[in-house]
Amino acid sequence: MWFTKEPEIWFTERHTENLGITFKIKNILFSGESKYQRIDVLDSYELGRVLTLDGIIMVTEKDEFVYHEMISHIPLFTHPDPRKILVIGGGDGGTVREVLKHPQVQALDLVEIDALVIEKSKEFLPTVSYSLSDERVNILIKDGIEFVREKQEEYDVVIIDSTDPIGPAEGLFKEEFYKNVCKILKNDGIMVAQTESPFYYKERVCEIFRNIRKSFPIAKMFTAYIPTYPSGLWTFSLGSKRYCPMENFQIDRYRLEDIPTKYYNESIHRAAFSLPNFIKELLL
Amino acid sequence: MWFTKEPEIWFTERHTENLGITFKIKNILFSGESKYQRIDVLDSYELGRVLTLDGIIMVTEKDEFVYHEMISHIPLFTHPDPRKILVIGGGDGGTVREVLKHPQVQALDLVEIDALVIEKSKEFLPTVSYSLSDERVNILIKDGIEFVREKQEEYDVVIIDSTDPIGPAEGLFKEEFYKNVCKILKNDGIMVAQTESPFYYKERVCEIFRNIRKSFPIAKMFTAYIPTYPSGLWTFSLGSKRYCPMENFQIDRYRLEDIPTKYYNESIHRAAFSLPNFIKELLL
Repeated sequence: MWFTKEPEIWFTERHTENLGITFKIKNILFSGESKYQRIDVLDSYELGRVLTLDGIIMVTEKDEFVYHEMISHIPLFTHPDPRKILVIGGGDGGTVREVLKHPQVQALDLVEIDALVIEKSKEFLPTVSYSLSDERVNILIKDGIEFVREKQEEYDVVIIDSTDPIGPAEGLFKEEFYKNVCKILKNDGIMVAQTESPFYYKERVCEIFRNIRKSFPIAKMFTAYIPTYPSGLWTFSLGSKRYCPMENFQIDRYRLEDIPTKYYNESIHRAAFSLPNFIKELLL
Repeated sequence: MWFTKEPEIWFTERHTENLGITFKIKNILFSGESKYQRIDVLDSYELGRVLTLDGIIMVTEKDEFVYHEMISHIPLFTHPDPRKILVIGGGDGGTVREVLKHPQVQALDLVEIDALVIEKSKEFLPTVSYSLSDERVNILIKDGIEFVREKQEEYDVVIIDSTDPIGPAEGLFKEEFYKNVCKILKNDGIMVAQTESPFYYKERVCEIFRNIRKSFPIAKMFTAYIPTYPSGLWTFSLGSKRYCPMENFQIDRYRLEDIPTKYYNESIHRAAFSLPNFIKELLL
């Protein structure tokens, strides 16, 4: 008989029906069900603490910096004077943390549908969520889809930090939603959304980007390495009314030195918009 | 009782002690042991056929194009006239396939230690291995370490397409080896090696790059998205005697249109050398 003192408990997320990531966990710190989704916080050996929603990895302490830096600093360094920011989703607080590194930001509205995500992130992921208590942050527990439908023009930058386009977040990838986001942006505003992996979800990426292109005069896709997301190759899409993220982002270069980052830098900003041929073909 | 007609057979590769990739397989097409390593060919639902050596994924039909294009086209487009090429390892033939897309290439020596890898790749991975029978290719079943020690100056480009630096390939990452590779390159020659993932194997990447930097006047690291390799973020390192891969690669731009690729393009060539801060810090 073979035995070990410690039970081997492995979490597995299937990225497709037939492939996934698997890692060993120490403990389940929280499991619960909100009105919208199942929420779990795991403590893992390799990735630190991990937040999953409906069994899908949202944030791991080890690699969350990539996603949060890239979804925030690309639009904020593209915009010459980002003062008023809206984050839709992002209840873990990682995007808020990165946005607030920019001293120009005066106000940030966080529209998160699920209060329990915020509560559990504050409790279990302090290094991610600590900026949620910053005085510039206004937290609204609301459906982002309704929020942008009713709101009037106001923001410099809108960041869509959502879950995947299945279940409650589905409407956050539709043309109507992006058109409403465009409407609530000032006339030189910028939107960024997380837009999935083109390696396993080709059709999904195609369709989302098509919706963004229909809604903004300038639409560009960029990528980042996110080891714990499906395929590691993740895309974000930027819709802009005036500034091109590949040409205009150097305007305030001096700011970069004041903003500590582990992934983002000027060279990465430029490079992130270079797409492999198989992605370019999806966007034709 | 719950049952299904078809058995659920999953292959798992641990990228670290506590994390891995897992995918469902249809069949094991081959399992065998050579003098050097265990060799398996799996047929999978998500990734097509998969070659593993000592249980580690080397090639999958679905994503092999990224690795093979990037390890080949970066040095071959940097060199203005690559005629004589050496590939060390690479018995699957994928690198040979990409190198031979360049019409300037007149001769390619493939030095592979394990004849069984070549044999099984020819048998089970025809879309990867078909160029191994090209008349420009000279296959030598030899240890690459000894080969470069004894050989005299000769090559325009040397590509180190090896397994990981544990077991038989360990010597392919050492300073002595890189110094010998430098010796067998012409005085404007270029070397490229696969150099592991900086996300899970920081120290390994540091040490390898240090060895390359000690051996070549110009040393640069670049990255590519390889979904089935650990973390998806993979590095390659280029050592060069004269040409800088970031400045000189446009010399023959016209060639790019004649060479069909799914990942590599001019913009990717440039972008691949942009490194995230956490990698740059490793290389200081």
